Amino acid sequence: MIKNKLKQIWAEGRPTINGWLSIGNPFTAEIMAAQGYDSVSIDVQHGALDYSMLLPMFQAMRASGVVPMARVPWLEPGIIMKVLDAGAYGVICPMVNTAEQAAQFVSYMRYPPAGQRSFGPTRANFSAGANYAAEANDEILAFAMVETAEAMRNLDAIAATPGLDGIYVGPADLTFSLHQGRLAPGFDREEPEMIEALQTIVAACKKHGKRAALHCGTADYAARAIKWGFDMTTVSGDSRLLASAAQASVARFRELTGAKAVLGEAGKGGY
Amino acid sequence: MIKNKLKQIWAEGRPTINGWLSIGNPFTAEIMAAQGYDSVSIDVQHGALDYSMLLPMFQAMRASGVVPMARVPWLEPGIIMKVLDAGAYGVICPMVNTAEQAAQFVSYMRYPPAGQRSFGPTRANFSAGANYAAEANDEILAFAMVETAEAMRNLDAIAATPGLDGIYVGPADLTFSLHQGRLAPGFDREEPEMIEALQTIVAACKKHGKRAALHCGTADYAARAIKWGFDMTTVSGDSRLLASAAQASVARFRELTGAKAVLGEAGKGGY
Amino acid sequence: MIKNKLKQIWAEGRPTINGWLSIGNPFTAEIMAAQGYDSVSIDVQHGALDYSMLLPMFQAMRASGVVPMARVPWLEPGIIMKVLDAGAYGVICPMVNTAEQAAQFVSYMRYPPAGQRSFGPTRANFSAGANYAAEANDEILAFAMVETAEAMRNLDAIAATPGLDGIYVGPADLTFSLHQGRLAPGFDREEPEMIEALQTIVAACKKHGKRAALHCGTADYAARAIKWGFDMTTVSGDSRLLASAAQASVARFRELTGAKAVLGEAGKGGY
Amino acid sequence: MIKNKLKQIWAEGRPTINGWLSIGNPFTAEIMAAQGYDSVSIDVQHGALDYSMLLPMFQAMRASGVVPMARVPWLEPGIIMKVLDAGAYGVICPMVNTAEQAAQFVSYMRYPPAGQRSFGPTRANFSAGANYAAEANDEILAFAMVETAEAMRNLDAIAATPGLDGIYVGPADLTFSLHQGRLAPGFDREEPEMIEALQTIVAACKKHGKRAALHCGTADYAARAIKWGFDMTTVSGDSRLLASAAQASVARFRELTGAKAVLGEAGKGGY
Amino acid sequence: MIKNKLKQIWAEGRPTINGWLSIGNPFTAEIMAAQGYDSVSIDVQHGALDYSMLLPMFQAMRASGVVPMARVPWLEPGIIMKVLDAGAYGVICPMVNTAEQAAQFVSYMRYPPAGQRSFGPTRANFSAGANYAAEANDEILAFAMVETAEAMRNLDAIAATPGLDGIYVGPADLTFSLHQGRLAPGFDREEPEMIEALQTIVAACKKHGKRAALHCGTADYAARAIKWGFDMTTVSGDSRLLASAAQASVARFRELTGAKAVLGEAGKGGY
Amino acid sequence: MIKNKLKQIWAEGRPTINGWLSIGNPFTAEIMAAQGYDSVSIDVQHGALDYSMLLPMFQAMRASGVVPMARVPWLEPGIIMKVLDAGAYGVICPMVNTAEQAAQFVSYMRYPPAGQRSFGPTRANFSAGANYAAEANDEILAFAMVETAEAMRNLDAIAATPGLDGIYVGPADLTFSLHQGRLAPGFDREEPEMIEALQTIVAACKKHGKRAALHCGTADYAARAIKWGFDMTTVSGDSRLLASAAQASVARFRELTGAKAVLGEAGKGGY
Repeated sequence: MIKNKLKQIWAEGRPTINGWLSIGNPFTAEIMAAQGYDSVSIDVQHGALDYSMLLPMFQAMRASGVVPMARVPWLEPGIIMKVLDAGAYGVICPMVNTAEQAAQFVSYMRYPPAGQRSFGPTRANFSAGANYAAEANDEILAFAMVETAEAMRNLDAIAATPGLDGIYVGPADLTFSLHQGRLAPGFDREEPEMIEALQTIVAACKKHGKRAALHCGTADYAARAIKWGFDMTTVSGDSRLLASAAQASVARFRELTGAKAVLGEAGKGGY
Repeated sequence: MIKNKLKQIWAEGRPTINGWLSIGNPFTAEIMAAQGYDSVSIDVQHGALDYSMLLPMFQAMRASGVVPMARVPWLEPGIIMKVLDAGAYGVICPMVNTAEQAAQFVSYMRYPPAGQRSFGPTRANFSAGANYAAEANDEILAFAMVETAEAMRNLDAIAATPGLDGIYVGPADLTFSLHQGRLAPGFDREEPEMIEALQTIVAACKKHGKRAALHCGTADYAARAIKWGFDMTTVSGDSRLLASAAQASVARFRELTGAKAVLGEAGKGGY
Repeated sequence: MIKNKLKQIWAEGRPTINGWLSIGNPFTAEIMAAQGYDSVSIDVQHGALDYSMLLPMFQAMRASGVVPMARVPWLEPGIIMKVLDAGAYGVICPMVNTAEQAAQFVSYMRYPPAGQRSFGPTRANFSAGANYAAEANDEILAFAMVETAEAMRNLDAIAATPGLDGIYVGPADLTFSLHQGRLAPGFDREEPEMIEALQTIVAACKKHGKRAALHCGTADYAARAIKWGFDMTTVSGDSRLLASAAQASVARFRELTGAKAVLGEAGKGGY
Repeated sequence: MIKNKLKQIWAEGRPTINGWLSIGNPFTAEIMAAQGYDSVSIDVQHGALDYSMLLPMFQAMRASGVVPMARVPWLEPGIIMKVLDAGAYGVICPMVNTAEQAAQFVSYMRYPPAGQRSFGPTRANFSAGANYAAEANDEILAFAMVETAEAMRNLDAIAATPGLDGIYVGPADLTFSLHQGRLAPGFDREEPEMIEALQTIVAACKKHGKRAALHCGTADYAARAIKWGFDMTTVSGDSRLLASAAQASVARFRELTGAKAVLGEAGKGGY
Repeated sequence: MIKNKLKQIWAEGRPTINGWLSIGNPFTAEIMAAQGYDSVSIDVQHGALDYSMLLPMFQAMRASGVVPMARVPWLEPGIIMKVLDAGAYGVICPMVNTAEQAAQFVSYMRYPPAGQRSFGPTRANFSAGANYAAEANDEILAFAMVETAEAMRNLDAIAATPGLDGIYVGPADLTFSLHQGRLAPGFDREEPEMIEALQTIVAACKKHGKRAALHCGTADYAARAIKWGFDMTTVSGDSRLLASAAQASVARFRELTGAKAVLGEAGKGGY
Repeated sequence: MIKNKLKQIWAEGRPTINGWLSIGNPFTAEIMAAQGYDSVSIDVQHGALDYSMLLPMFQAMRASGVVPMARVPWLEPGIIMKVLDAGAYGVICPMVNTAEQAAQFVSYMRYPPAGQRSFGPTRANFSAGANYAAEANDEILAFAMVETAEAMRNLDAIAATPGLDGIYVGPADLTFSLHQGRLAPGFDREEPEMIEALQTIVAACKKHGKRAALHCGTADYAARAIKWGFDMTTVSGDSRLLASAAQASVARFRELTGAKAVLGEAGKGGY
């Protein structure tokens, strides 16, 4: 089985950058996979896509050598195993709030005796190389998301879960939950207590030999996170990168030419 | 029938900016349509998509009020009429090299007696508003692409074609053809003879009351084109915007963290 | 965030009519959204479609101004949240049989602290307007289906669930369950005990300030339901409307021309 | 090869009714195929679909025993032959204006020596039964559309084309063309000169042993056409049937309940 | 409702052969359905497909008369009921390890009062014939997979579950689980204790009047299984059949021509 | 730009084996690309697929290092250029009957000044490596199909076409055309005059420095063709390999168990 490059890089003490796909399209997947990320994750939870698109997207990423990962919609065994059979080398599971849930998650990720994953790596047999059955448990990464107040309370127990590879932090949900919805959700938090929470998570990971990963909005914040000890950061994602690049391009044109936008004037109702 | 906003803006002497879609996906279409462009064109010629994706993309753009257009693969009546029936308010036809081809193109775009377009605006009936049959010939824009040496020789005759609304310039092909393949194709040409060619096209359009449009790579070049007299410029496109934004994001991360790319080292062959 | 029109209409004491989509196609969605319904719901439970079609269908409905809703397959958090992220302004959850299930359903629908919905409104950010995070809990409707004998026994407790907006009645399942499978399932029940059950549900809703909605087969029955106090009725659906309209058209042709059907004679086995 | 039921019915002197598919979806195709039509045609010209949908739609129609046909976008050999390989038992070609075009059309439909159809009936081999190569030329129907003033002038020569099975009349385009765009296009024409034109076409067909087919909007008009001598009539189509049935249902609800439509009041811009 | 042919064959004391679909494509489904299998099952668990493909695949199989079945990803009610509504005549549920899980599975498969399946057989209404609501509980097969050590311990209780039709054995997972991952997973086991386990399952089925089914890799092993008392065997599947046939074809060419494979020499990285 | 491996192998005097895809699915494409072929061609002419599937299929083949090619439906510039932009390293054009058509075909394949291909290699830019514009004319193979009596008469002139790389022989159509439809079409012809025709084609290719390719049904016939001087042979294809492997598997089961097929007895009309 082809080795998981992320594990190799981390073993050398280096951090990684993860790309993020919310657009359900194999061509954008192929484009993103060619931009220099170490891994690229398909977001089946909040992304505008499901399994039927994940499969050709993984195929389109394959030639790049980038590590293919996926975030699943929820702690549900059906989709976790489908994503693995499709060739994922890592799965990020949202809303893992207790050690029991973390253990459940791990059990769906691993073949017996380590877990209860069902055997049938239909595509992975073609994409991951020989000896998949024997090595998959070792090569594939299981990331539990810590993103609620409850999960923070159970942090140490979650981080201690055998077979779990790391904790992935979703700052939007975590802020929402810690602040009872009083702060707007979003990435790249500057509130001192949020930064403290992130550092608490890193510490728990270090204590239990797990990897810590953070979802960021900008490379600059990601670089700070790496200094705090995170092993992997996701930086923005396809739909955000596209929207802001297009917006900047239009703004620049309008600024240079003085041509103002007139959608509101003439275009009621659309074509 | 809902009026074509591009015609209204141009009538007021103002230029427009056109977005460009090469990714076959309704979600990217919806995102792009929300960024402030006056019109957005789906590239069925060189884009990674065909009619089966154009349809839901037009639907996804509808609520934005942006003018929906399409570039067709070639001067072929089947696809030109399908794109119109799907609700296009403008069609850009590549490789129009003679006045005869320009007239053929116009004939496919217009209902009798102006042309030979077949009647059956299956989706346009729902999206374009009442009275489509009577007003479509007036509202829908026909752009012929001038992008070869042969077309430049026939420029005046092409520009004189009755029923044609404008000329759309593809600088990559035009450079390729004018320079016999000796210069690399690309946008935003700085060669004096290329700039001269663009200005010649603008002049021909003005002479015959047609609109001139240019495909540009950057807003800065587009702003220069507007000064030369172009009425519409396309600025970059979805796949280029995405690729360069992602590339810049990764580069910034690697620069700030010192984490070098290791695809070449560890990742032969892909997953 | 754009206001939920259904809430506005009900606040004025008026009933609404809901359309129903079982065909997985954005063009039928666009057509149906233009026929005058107040809301249109995509049936991901029994409809011949799943999330991969729901997304472009919501996009195609957007320009109409109709309120987009969805029925999910089951009380499963993954799909409920995906449907919300796709832009749903209302979710109908089948087979809610206990107050505990109703509370679980509400928790999946609401951001903290009201619930445990995960943040990431990928498409809703584009379609629902500004301030989504803060207002989504208020604008989006949560309808629990009461459609079993068990649910009828727990009706008052279900209707009392905080955060639940209303109860949606599926008469086919309800009849099936109440009568132990002895009566054929179907809409527009005339059995006195079924009508009584419907009125009991309306009463429970009124008592707890919830909306009552009924799935009907005909406009005539729907009008009766409105008189009984229902706030919203679904009337038939795309596949049934299409099938019966086509059937009537063929029957009329055969009646007028005397041309009898010969499928059974000549067409064994199909082409 | 399974025999073409349409030919069998016509041989017995009976007329047929054809269904029409503009929605690109295999489930609507399966529904429509079950409503009692003798044949069902997929409209690849003006329908909201292309080849990628036609294939599963033909598959979904197969079990019904209905004769599968298709209208192609234009007189283009690529798509005509693809539609045949997909299993079509009849092809309707739009805008056949001269005898030369009619002969070209026939040549694309027939294997040598009768024509130049390329051999490779990939799906038809599975769906049409044994001996396809030898019998396809006999069983598959070629219908040329007469729908312009030019075609009317060449009517006799078109009708005389060897290998052509019939003429299919598109009243919308024909009206448009004969009246130079002064009359609105549409079906079920009542203008005396249009009815005369239809009868002229029937007469030309009878003279040359060809079948005459008419696209109608209602069963009542279709029944009149049968009396004029048409062998086949198409009556309405999926998208029209659906739209009008839904519209009637909503109108009936609003009439009975007095609930007026409020889209215009509250729903600007959509969700 | 059309009768389930499998039940008829088994009632006559004859075994059946089941085909297996892992490729998400209606054309391969149509091809496979024509090769003489008694039933064909779509693998939504490990297959490279989901519900969005299962639907057109069932449609494409319909004309063949083969019994359509599906394996679902997990014991999750949402997808089990969707697969039934799509027209499945049998469902295979993986990882049923206890009698309680078996009873849950049965409850999702049956309408009240036998179970809690929700009513809405959207496509089945078109494909399965009249009287579906009353007869579906009798005609549709529920197969629980026994494939873990835990399930073997609970075998008798699982086999005794009322409403369950049979046990389907997945030898890969069963071996994995029984041997704690020490033996490579795979079909067609020759280990004496595995053969004994299979025979134990057959005996438990016979005792409780259930059908026993086995997933096999070759017809030869399947024939042995039939002798052991299995009622149904699956023999290989679409993706394996295709891969090995192609591989054999290439190997034969290289052997006959001496043309060696050079991918490794020249083709680094792909096109 | 990545070099075309086929040219490298031929330059060393060795023959190649080409795979053939008629199933429109990226998973079957990925499977087939892994079986050891030197190149794999997607059949957009007779295959059950179009451009919308070709794109993800090319993506799925990329990691294998196999050379991606396509057969287009007809000599039409639109689809030829789309296939090239999608990343094809070779195009096979059917029904090239004259030297003029061969020259036209070449002109669509080549950038100026060698031809009139339009510039915009949207995906090829990502998949084919750097310097595409300058090297594409050299690396991409143009194969004209000789498959009619007319083409045989013009063989020498076609083979002499500058810029054409080779002739691809379709034996089914060639037999059909040469024998006026009297012989059944098919591969692996044994008629002496057909073998002579094949050898005539090889000779014409050798004379003009072109490659000769033959579509075969079996590896054994392909090996004979290689001896006759063919440079490349296609051996069978995905749908045929699958159908015959499945058929053989079922037959073997029925032979070993004595279980006869009962489709005809019990299964009228399908499910």
